[in-house]
Amino acid sequence: MRNRPLAEHLSLVLEGAAGDSSASDVDRLRALLAPFGLRDVSIPAGQMKDLPAAMRTAGGRLDIVLGYPRGRPRLLAVGGRRVFGVAVDLGSTNLSGCLVDLSSGSRLCSAETRNPQVPYGKDVLTRVHRAMSGDADGLTLAMRTGVNVLISDLCSGAGIPAQDVVAVTVSGNTIMTHFFLGLDVTHIPVAPYTPVVSEGVFLRGAEAGLATNEEALVYVFPNCGSYVGGDIVSGMLAAGIHREEHAALFIDVGTNAEVVLGCREWIMAGAGAAGPALEGDIAEIGRTSGPGTIRGVRINPADGSVDLDVEGGGEPAGICASGVIELVSGLFRSGIIDASGRFVEKAPGVEGTGDDRGFLVARTTGRRLVLREREIQNFLRSKAAMFSFLYVFVRAVGMRFSDLEKVFVAGALGCGIDLDHAIAIGLLPDIPKEKFVGLGNASLSGAEALLLNRDLLQEIETIRGLVTYRQMSEDRELMSVFQGALFIPHTDPEMLKG
Amino acid sequence: MRNRPLAEHLSLVLEGAAGDSSASDVDRLRALLAPFGLRDVSIPAGQMKDLPAAMRTAGGRLDIVLGYPRGRPRLLAVGGRRVFGVAVDLGSTNLSGCLVDLSSGSRLCSAETRNPQVPYGKDVLTRVHRAMSGDADGLTLAMRTGVNVLISDLCSGAGIPAQDVVAVTVSGNTIMTHFFLGLDVTHIPVAPYTPVVSEGVFLRGAEAGLATNEEALVYVFPNCGSYVGGDIVSGMLAAGIHREEHAALFIDVGTNAEVVLGCREWIMAGAGAAGPALEGDIAEIGRTSGPGTIRGVRINPADGSVDLDVEGGGEPAGICASGVIELVSGLFRSGIIDASGRFVEKAPGVEGTGDDRGFLVARTTGRRLVLREREIQNFLRSKAAMFSFLYVFVRAVGMRFSDLEKVFVAGALGCGIDLDHAIAIGLLPDIPKEKFVGLGNASLSGAEALLLNRDLLQEIETIRGLVTYRQMSEDRELMSVFQGALFIPHTDPEMLKG
Repeated sequence: MRNRPLAEHLSLVLEGAAGDSSASDVDRLRALLAPFGLRDVSIPAGQMKDLPAAMRTAGGRLDIVLGYPRGRPRLLAVGGRRVFGVAVDLGSTNLSGCLVDLSSGSRLCSAETRNPQVPYGKDVLTRVHRAMSGDADGLTLAMRTGVNVLISDLCSGAGIPAQDVVAVTVSGNTIMTHFFLGLDVTHIPVAPYTPVVSEGVFLRGAEAGLATNEEALVYVFPNCGSYVGGDIVSGMLAAGIHREEHAALFIDVGTNAEVVLGCREWIMAGAGAAGPALEGDIAEIGRTSGPGTIRGVRINPADGSVDLDVEGGGEPAGICASGVIELVSGLFRSGIIDASGRFVEKAPGVEGTGDDRGFLVARTTGRRLVLREREIQNFLRSKAAMFSFLYVFVRAVGMRFSDLEKVFVAGALGCGIDLDHAIAIGLLPDIPKEKFVGLGNASLSGAEALLLNRDLLQEIETIRGLVTYRQMSEDRELMSVFQGALFIPHTDPEMLKG
Repeated sequence: MRNRPLAEHLSLVLEGAAGDSSASDVDRLRALLAPFGLRDVSIPAGQMKDLPAAMRTAGGRLDIVLGYPRGRPRLLAVGGRRVFGVAVDLGSTNLSGCLVDLSSGSRLCSAETRNPQVPYGKDVLTRVHRAMSGDADGLTLAMRTGVNVLISDLCSGAGIPAQDVVAVTVSGNTIMTHFFLGLDVTHIPVAPYTPVVSEGVFLRGAEAGLATNEEALVYVFPNCGSYVGGDIVSGMLAAGIHREEHAALFIDVGTNAEVVLGCREWIMAGAGAAGPALEGDIAEIGRTSGPGTIRGVRINPADGSVDLDVEGGGEPAGICASGVIELVSGLFRSGIIDASGRFVEKAPGVEGTGDDRGFLVARTTGRRLVLREREIQNFLRSKAAMFSFLYVFVRAVGMRFSDLEKVFVAGALGCGIDLDHAIAIGLLPDIPKEKFVGLGNASLSGAEALLLNRDLLQEIETIRGLVTYRQMSEDRELMSVFQGALFIPHTDPEMLKG
């Protein structure tokens, strides 16, 4: 099957000698496009400038780049044979992206950079308040600067000029995409939670302030309201939940627990606060993945000594979300902590007293990496919030975990998580492991998939048409499930099976 | 009937209190537009910025400006209640424009300014050569600067901010519109006479470098090839030749004689060089209309004394095209010149000798306005070129002047010309005067009409579909008719009746 990317290069054969027709260059181009089924192509005045020379070159070929915003193909550039696309996930903490060759469909490289908005406020609400007190333009500029850093890193990584980037797809939560578009975020986090725009937005690279080709087709994913952002829409697209015959669960765990349940006939979405603990932001020693990050921990129950799996080898510098899950699971299994997450009397490897008590994970040059009891408590609160949200959500449609055919796990938990440990501590439902599908950064994957297949624009509309948002924060059942879920794995293990 | 301008202001009633819906502002706007039959309105990202504040104003009304480029209405601006349009005719010598109130449909004022390209070359071919030797950008900038001067004059004349100009229609010959669009003019005047673009072009005010609202909808009229420019298409639109049941003739006389013959079923267009004489550019004393211009002349055959009709009264400064026609006609009727345009022996009012002989038109403070014999010869060559072109053109479709139901006369000859004199000297065919319809600047009129009625976009396409260009320059008959037409009115007066 022929690739159908969001933008593509076409090499047209110029018939006859150059300049033997009195038909205008634009009309001649239209005649060349018609055999491809390309009619009514939008040819902006700015793109006409380069036509006369290109149509009179010795080679007898005309290279053009077409983009496919909804409805009508558009001439993006005349000349140039290499065309690239960048997919971007606007995370509140990190911006992630990848560069793809739109002709071959292959991914050339990926990159991540800190969201330059972080200095304005670590959490998103703080940034909204900053925007309300006059910093909106600065926040948008910071965001776009971050995306440009990402694009620049990707392009230099692959050794291509940024000018050859002709398509960019951008996903992110509703506040992030509004910041990116330079739109007012004020009304998003307060009742009745009104975004400026929900539909997908197409704009030019120059309009979005991007350092790509200025005519690049930039697509910002649509949201389904304030709570179900473009990152979740993109994630659903990557998971393909809208094509499932039987109900599947989609979990994207970050600071918020975003959960989607549905199939090709209906989709229910919900969101709740999970706290930062599940994003690796748990403690002094928490960090996101990268060289030096502890991603696996094995504990010797006899003496509390540990065997670490450190990314890239070498000295550990911190621990990521999956490492924490394995660590807490191991501490429980080794009998070092009890079901309530507190250190048992005289447990090996534990140092300090009272709330300050902690388990020595590693000792490096000049530093001791310790996971403290209060940090374990924080983690359990996040775990409990996540699980109870999942439980109540699935029950709300009259289903049980055991009814689920698939569970897609995206976000911080989606890459490299050991399912055994996540199930063991009661973070994920206790169902057969083969039903879990790890997606990693599903938001980025959906954005990347769209770059390579413009027909997904239609699927995005299908998803938006299926989604219903379910407000969960005032659910009474939630609190009782939460109380039990504060324990490892749960006060009632049967609930883990739904 | 409701006005259907190219851009319009809509005042929408915001239902319910501001911000009582979680539907996005864009979705809410779409819901407000639907009852007007406005679906699938293009809402650019840049226009979304102003929505949140505008939708939460105390007034309960949302003012927007919509434009109607082909296919899909577009949100041009949020806020603002007054919307204006500017129509521009890009003449090679003068730029003419008028300002209209798009809400009421009334014309507020009109203006004219010298085309700033003139210093690059008085005739258009010289400018094309300048463009080829590296001055293309300068010529485009000069043209756009001229249009901005015009817009500025119009806006200050009416006392409105240029920001409120939201639609601009631009007509001109093919080279002029290409210069305006910043497109390569190189291939237009040489075989096979290829323009870069023939179709109508929509662009944003900012893209066209105009000092209007930067989102203003700018429309540049399409051409029917190198010879039949957008000015003629616009003129045909103003004349309505494409709606005529019986064949009508349309004549636009400038440096080129542009002639169109047709009706609602077919249109044939042709162009030939007429020379500058018919544009008032005949002689030392020639000038375009304005205060101080002689537009009428009565001669006393007895003593050669003259009675002048001077625009605005006062001392005459020069003579325009219609004045020259009346002058030559009067000189012939008074017996001061003979049928070949030469002064008879001892004619009154004639001074000087040989080729330098001339008729004293006026004596002002420190200056003598004289029409010289060689200038009359130039004028007769232009007259002959014009007439012979008309004659051969009408004959080419097997018709005679007497078959014509209407003759539309546009351009320099279209305003204020005395038909009796034009017919008397054999410039226009000798048919009943009531068949002539003077249109003035028909190119500008067509552009103005489009501002007020977007349905004309469809009529423009109809016109383009009907037009066939007929190459006339190599016609053998032309030369023999031309030779006779060098005389007043013609060596064979029967030919004037076709």
